[in-house]
Amino acid sequence: MAKGMQGFGYAFCLLLSVLLNILLVANILYGGDGEWRLRELKWSQDAAAAAETVAALQCSGHGRAYIDGKIGDDGITPVCECHNCYSGPDCSLLLPDCFADADSGDPLFLEPFWVQNAASSAVVVSGWHRMSYSFPGSSNPGSAYFSQELENHIRKVHAVAGNAITDGKYIVFGVGSTQLCNAAVYALSLENSSSLSPAKVVAKIPFYPLYKSQTEYFETKYYEFQGDPSLLKNDTDAAGNVIEFVTSPNNPDGHLRAPVVGGPFARAIYDRAYYWPHFTAIPAAADEDLSIFTISKLTGHAGSRFGWAIVKDKSVYENMFMYIKAAELGISKETQLRALTLLKTVLQGDGRGIFNFSYEKMKSRWEKLSQIISQSHRFTLQEISPKYCNFFEKIRGPSPAYAWVKCLWEEETNCTTVLEAAKIIGRAGSMFSAEDRYVRLSLLKRDDDFEQLLVRLRELVAIEDGAKTM
Amino acid sequence: MAKGMQGFGYAFCLLLSVLLNILLVANILYGGDGEWRLRELKWSQDAAAAAETVAALQCSGHGRAYIDGKIGDDGITPVCECHNCYSGPDCSLLLPDCFADADSGDPLFLEPFWVQNAASSAVVVSGWHRMSYSFPGSSNPGSAYFSQELENHIRKVHAVAGNAITDGKYIVFGVGSTQLCNAAVYALSLENSSSLSPAKVVAKIPFYPLYKSQTEYFETKYYEFQGDPSLLKNDTDAAGNVIEFVTSPNNPDGHLRAPVVGGPFARAIYDRAYYWPHFTAIPAAADEDLSIFTISKLTGHAGSRFGWAIVKDKSVYENMFMYIKAAELGISKETQLRALTLLKTVLQGDGRGIFNFSYEKMKSRWEKLSQIISQSHRFTLQEISPKYCNFFEKIRGPSPAYAWVKCLWEEETNCTTVLEAAKIIGRAGSMFSAEDRYVRLSLLKRDDDFEQLLVRLRELVAIEDGAKTM
Repeated sequence: MAKGMQGFGYAFCLLLSVLLNILLVANILYGGDGEWRLRELKWSQDAAAAAETVAALQCSGHGRAYIDGKIGDDGITPVCECHNCYSGPDCSLLLPDCFADADSGDPLFLEPFWVQNAASSAVVVSGWHRMSYSFPGSSNPGSAYFSQELENHIRKVHAVAGNAITDGKYIVFGVGSTQLCNAAVYALSLENSSSLSPAKVVAKIPFYPLYKSQTEYFETKYYEFQGDPSLLKNDTDAAGNVIEFVTSPNNPDGHLRAPVVGGPFARAIYDRAYYWPHFTAIPAAADEDLSIFTISKLTGHAGSRFGWAIVKDKSVYENMFMYIKAAELGISKETQLRALTLLKTVLQGDGRGIFNFSYEKMKSRWEKLSQIISQSHRFTLQEISPKYCNFFEKIRGPSPAYAWVKCLWEEETNCTTVLEAAKIIGRAGSMFSAEDRYVRLSLLKRDDDFEQLLVRLRELVAIEDGAKTM
Repeated sequence: MAKGMQGFGYAFCLLLSVLLNILLVANILYGGDGEWRLRELKWSQDAAAAAETVAALQCSGHGRAYIDGKIGDDGITPVCECHNCYSGPDCSLLLPDCFADADSGDPLFLEPFWVQNAASSAVVVSGWHRMSYSFPGSSNPGSAYFSQELENHIRKVHAVAGNAITDGKYIVFGVGSTQLCNAAVYALSLENSSSLSPAKVVAKIPFYPLYKSQTEYFETKYYEFQGDPSLLKNDTDAAGNVIEFVTSPNNPDGHLRAPVVGGPFARAIYDRAYYWPHFTAIPAAADEDLSIFTISKLTGHAGSRFGWAIVKDKSVYENMFMYIKAAELGISKETQLRALTLLKTVLQGDGRGIFNFSYEKMKSRWEKLSQIISQSHRFTLQEISPKYCNFFEKIRGPSPAYAWVKCLWEEETNCTTVLEAAKIIGRAGSMFSAEDRYVRLSLLKRDDDFEQLLVRLRELVAIEDGAKTM
């Protein structure tokens, strides 16, 4: 009897063990999460494990390690790269006298969105992925260099955001909107190259510094930078053509803009980098001859250097394509692959997730900043009036990318130095061809940067009555 | 007794089953290949599985599917993209009257190397990877845009290949060597910008067409394209500066070259794209003021658009960096990450694997081609004499990237049309500013392309006596 029980016990344990074996084999072959996808990886396992190992490194939430980062003393593991104002091996040390750096337009406020969407936004690039110069042939000249799938997804994102009409228009890719700015100037200058004088490139003050620096740097006989449109001489310049940068919403002040220059020879390049629900109400879909967008201000991937122009005229499209071809025989295939993966994530579900995330984040930052500045008699911010937004289907308040701060006290003609004395780094008004009484503060950076900016601003506003009497 | 045996049998099976359990658990937690790496992936599993699924698609060895390719009728799976001359859903159909396309310098002969090294060359890019414009700050201006790890690996690859001295020199990254050509012209033209006349840009015939097309396209007041150095007028041009493209080995003819222009105002841009053991003997490490390299002709990744310049003078380096900055605020971070991963694979073991692979492949191609042309009285190839190679430590024969074919018959002044009639697409001599009696055939493409070229050439040479008497 005892032996019979023992035999039964063995048989029962064996049954359990065999069942466990079956489950474990199933787990190896397929995922344990209910989905029947193949789990066994052949060649991508090591790369995936390496990426996950680095991503799992703890940098106290104030830094991050990267797979191409500096390697630590062990000779294998990358070290934490700390956010501004943080230090130590795990970035846990807040530096006491640190400057709040609100200079650059680095759009890192979007980083948490991508951490939240880690699975869908990851991309595995095989060693043999798209080694060729060209995609397989297709209908228009650009399709050899530009991914058709990516172009389709760009059109879909605009349809969801309702910020641009792409039907019947061409799309050119560039190495960031940066490159497309000059490609557009170049292409438009050829449109009226029979004119004796070079095209005058203008932008209303305050304007993004690159228009001037880049246009002057790459000046040809077909165009030259002029500056504010008020500098145009009606009598002599009417015969030549004018190319106007229209930045809407504007960098630095966030205002929606229309062209200043009219007439038959005026052509506009709409810089639409910030024309997303993140930063502005969308009163209507842009429907212009030439608009430039960048992934930098849509998904936050400034480091990818990827932008696109939406172009109505075939000849302008072809000239812009020729520029990209002459400059560098196309655009990085891995950048295009990653951009495609990111846009697929953007379009998941109803495709509104990234806009809700960004708008809430930027609105909240603007409100916190405004609240502090409202206590001040020394500084003001630009005013952006609420507008009806087609995307949110309601009247919505401001959530701009930058604060355009003005120093009100008569003697404080250089607002940048005023802020710098309070350990705040901004970008001087003169950089935007405006008065130095203005300074631009970036609201786009990481939470750590923004929090540090609030800390320094609160300190500054708190002592302002004392500063006045000094 | 029988029951005792049964109990023993159960116990034995249970022991086996439990052992199997342990093995399976170990297999889940760690790889089955003896390495104790963590197998459970959190966020990269789906991306890895997607990449492997697409890579596993069978396209008969005459095509390939890509994760960013056109999606098939099932709405999920990308379709096969067939190599030239192949067709059908699985690319198994050889088109009967197909042209051998030997036009472009697409370096796809290296594709099999990367399939062989699939695991080490795969890279996983997380959604939050390097979103910033900049790498964390460092010593020189470029380090904000250029990966320091990648720069270190570039220096190591040159040390292994023995083809360039990088010690004490600066490295600038560009969107392919293409962009660096113009960046170099621009930067060197500023070095002597006090001169009244623009710098004359020259290149000895036959030369790579881009030097002319690009330099003319981006002409500024500081430089202009002149053409062959023999066009320089000694009396008037001696005062101005001269910028000479020295392509060594040369595209199209594979000859090692030295500058033609001398004197105090002459500056050379060495295009070293083909200066790798793949294509030429390496008589000595290049040690020039300004040399340009590209990943395209080292690893075969033309689609990545990544190149670098090795620069001696700090001011030239800074001017080239300024060009990259003005053009597009840096270089794609995912491209840099992938380039780093590829170079790490190149450097595996003794770092000589890719050079052995490429040299054998290119040498074999040259021998097959030479064998066919040696039967002909109608065509000749360029002669490249054997040279001592520091890399292989022996005298080695030719393995050039291109055949520079000459039509010998007096009446056949356009060699391109002669080949075209035989269903061979080459690049006309006039594209290289040479006679059309010459034509360039690319030996860099996929095996399928090269085999098709051999087929067509054999047919052509076989009928040549008949053609002469016609």
